[in-house]
Amino acid sequence: MKTFQEMSRQELKELYDKLMLQFEQIKAEDLKLDMSRGKPAPEQLDTAMPLLNVINGESDLRTESGVDCRNYGIMDGIPEIKRLMAEMLETKPENVIVDGNASLSLMFDTVSHSVTHGVCGATPWCKLDKVKFLCPAPGYDRHFKVTEYFGIEMITIPMTEDGPDMDLVEKYVQTDASVKGIWCVPKYSNPQGYTYSDETVRRFVNLKPAAEDFRIYWDNAYCIHDLYEDKCDTLLEILSECEKAGNPDLVFEFASTSKISFAGAGVSVIAASEKNREWIKKAMTVQTIGPDKINQLRHVRYYKDKAGLRTQMMKNSALIRPKFELVKEVLEKELGGLGIGKWTNPVGGYFISFDALEGCAKAIVAKCKEGGMVLTDAGATYPYGVDPKDSNIRIAPSYPSLEEMKEASKLFVLCVKLVSIEKLLQD
Amino acid sequence: MKTFQEMSRQELKELYDKLMLQFEQIKAEDLKLDMSRGKPAPEQLDTAMPLLNVINGESDLRTESGVDCRNYGIMDGIPEIKRLMAEMLETKPENVIVDGNASLSLMFDTVSHSVTHGVCGATPWCKLDKVKFLCPAPGYDRHFKVTEYFGIEMITIPMTEDGPDMDLVEKYVQTDASVKGIWCVPKYSNPQGYTYSDETVRRFVNLKPAAEDFRIYWDNAYCIHDLYEDKCDTLLEILSECEKAGNPDLVFEFASTSKISFAGAGVSVIAASEKNREWIKKAMTVQTIGPDKINQLRHVRYYKDKAGLRTQMMKNSALIRPKFELVKEVLEKELGGLGIGKWTNPVGGYFISFDALEGCAKAIVAKCKEGGMVLTDAGATYPYGVDPKDSNIRIAPSYPSLEEMKEASKLFVLCVKLVSIEKLLQD
Repeated sequence: MKTFQEMSRQELKELYDKLMLQFEQIKAEDLKLDMSRGKPAPEQLDTAMPLLNVINGESDLRTESGVDCRNYGIMDGIPEIKRLMAEMLETKPENVIVDGNASLSLMFDTVSHSVTHGVCGATPWCKLDKVKFLCPAPGYDRHFKVTEYFGIEMITIPMTEDGPDMDLVEKYVQTDASVKGIWCVPKYSNPQGYTYSDETVRRFVNLKPAAEDFRIYWDNAYCIHDLYEDKCDTLLEILSECEKAGNPDLVFEFASTSKISFAGAGVSVIAASEKNREWIKKAMTVQTIGPDKINQLRHVRYYKDKAGLRTQMMKNSALIRPKFELVKEVLEKELGGLGIGKWTNPVGGYFISFDALEGCAKAIVAKCKEGGMVLTDAGATYPYGVDPKDSNIRIAPSYPSLEEMKEASKLFVLCVKLVSIEKLLQD
Repeated sequence: MKTFQEMSRQELKELYDKLMLQFEQIKAEDLKLDMSRGKPAPEQLDTAMPLLNVINGESDLRTESGVDCRNYGIMDGIPEIKRLMAEMLETKPENVIVDGNASLSLMFDTVSHSVTHGVCGATPWCKLDKVKFLCPAPGYDRHFKVTEYFGIEMITIPMTEDGPDMDLVEKYVQTDASVKGIWCVPKYSNPQGYTYSDETVRRFVNLKPAAEDFRIYWDNAYCIHDLYEDKCDTLLEILSECEKAGNPDLVFEFASTSKISFAGAGVSVIAASEKNREWIKKAMTVQTIGPDKINQLRHVRYYKDKAGLRTQMMKNSALIRPKFELVKEVLEKELGGLGIGKWTNPVGGYFISFDALEGCAKAIVAKCKEGGMVLTDAGATYPYGVDPKDSNIRIAPSYPSLEEMKEASKLFVLCVKLVSIEKLLQD
């Protein structure tokens, strides 16, 4: 089989015309496909419905410590949910603060408090001329939106299969005191599905930041989001590694049950050292009367422990896995060996990352849209929405049905081929 | 009957000794009474328990517009809860954003966004040398904590039975461009239970602020919290009054169901003009993936409409009313005509405000504590926690049982008498 680069202009043109016929056919089907966001599918959400049965009008809504979850009180989460979330993150219950329905809000608020009040007594970032964050990319668009919102300068750090380029991370963090943070999705990274290697984690916890208020934003969003029961990535537990390295205050860890129970109706968690927690709580005491304790109780009474969470995740992955496998199968079958794309092969998380020929991502996404499928905007996986190579596309296979995924994958590879030929003919 | 001021030193001393005997007896009972916070009583919360039955594992969790409440999406509240909250606030559904479990967070975030980004395009407050808020006092301690947290200078405005002293409010707002906001609890004010008169509201909406980014923080926390079915205060609807006055952007209105359904497990709402809402949403889009829509659906499916909310409130007030009446009865019987205290007589809300002789509030709260009862800290109802006259005490009768309230009221009036005599003998 020839790669597209090895084909003659004539061959490419003929192929293009043939593929355009297929594209027109698909276009005529008037599809409405959506692979834009990492949303759970309705069938996944169905598997979590019994969660809504554990609490009803007859329930005793007191915590194990006797607190009435229907009333005011408790700011950092009821004891039993702290235990469950700590178990999920493989840390101690005293290290966690369990909050409302969105870890994104916890991240936003942590940055916001740093801007207005400074981290643990340091100078508020709003008083500084320049604040920078390192952004391993491709990465999570909503992280980048938070730092962009606060006018924080974002520096792109290339991602490798082992995590961010640590030579660069060390260089920036250890020499530039205006670098105050780094966004990380350390397990099944968004969008590549890479998990940081032990060496990467160790280099992180041994950072000697130039800024005393530098923190790692460790968004462990996919901590238990394995696609396979027997094939799982493992990640070193960051808080204990920080302690061992004598750097206990280096990290804020975040997670939620949004992709475990219900998206937007789950609970969120932040884990950190005592010093960091005290700082967070100082703001929380003013900002809130506390989280929804009834929903926390609902979650812990249903899932009980990590095994319960794992059972839920296996129900979810049984539904997601075939979609991932289908996409990868179609990509391999239709694009394998053609030299016009590379993709990742994650065993967990919510995404597959696709790298097209340079300069093709935007055009592919536009072509897919023309064909009836919404993808995440090209560039969204980079700071400021700009992918310097215009190459990366995030594929989110979870939401559409398996049937739709077949259509979607077919349309996607077709658009990749068409745009690649256009590009090659142009050059 | 003589007032304490008319009694001789000898009479006062004799009375003091007699009262101290009673105090020692009560102290020996080792009471554990708590009148410190405006918390619903367990029996009140019991009346809301059927709310937890309307949604279970078999429920269809789609909104009337077809959105799956179990998944991501919708940032400003599902359509049906917007309608319900708008009805509660007597405004239009398009004017409201319905959020998570705490209106305090909405207020905090609104101030926070003003500090970091400026109100609707104005200069961020963090770039200004001085930002001031007017604080009608006595008022709500958590409001004052928010502005204190952000280093905003607080100016005390005396409260009258008709609301804040509007001459002073107009003077400050219309001449000082560093005055950016005012905290208001316009109906059944915390702690006095006063409701702003129509004239007060009209003077508010006709303000011509020196600062373009001045906003009224209208915390309508007790909008439907009447104690009597037939005896209710009425409040002009602020948003439509603002419009009529040609000042549509002047106000942010807040409320929640925390004291309707469950404290901390309800829904919160912010109502504002289109311009203000767009500004709020710009921040929200970055800060959150949206509110807990399942809990929103639960609330609207149970309460349905304003009549449903009203039915709930009547169940609540049937439980709170006797406690208010008991306190007022004991105050009248034991302190009436003695010249050592004045108190308010609200027909709604959560508090009774008590004004002791000047210089006595702290000592009375301390004495109550010695006798086995926690009250809100004296001073808490004033900016920076300092009541210049050391006179105001907030009485929160909702949480203790009626039986406990009898003990509590007895202890309270006893402490007022003791401390007043100490004061009079000192002078």
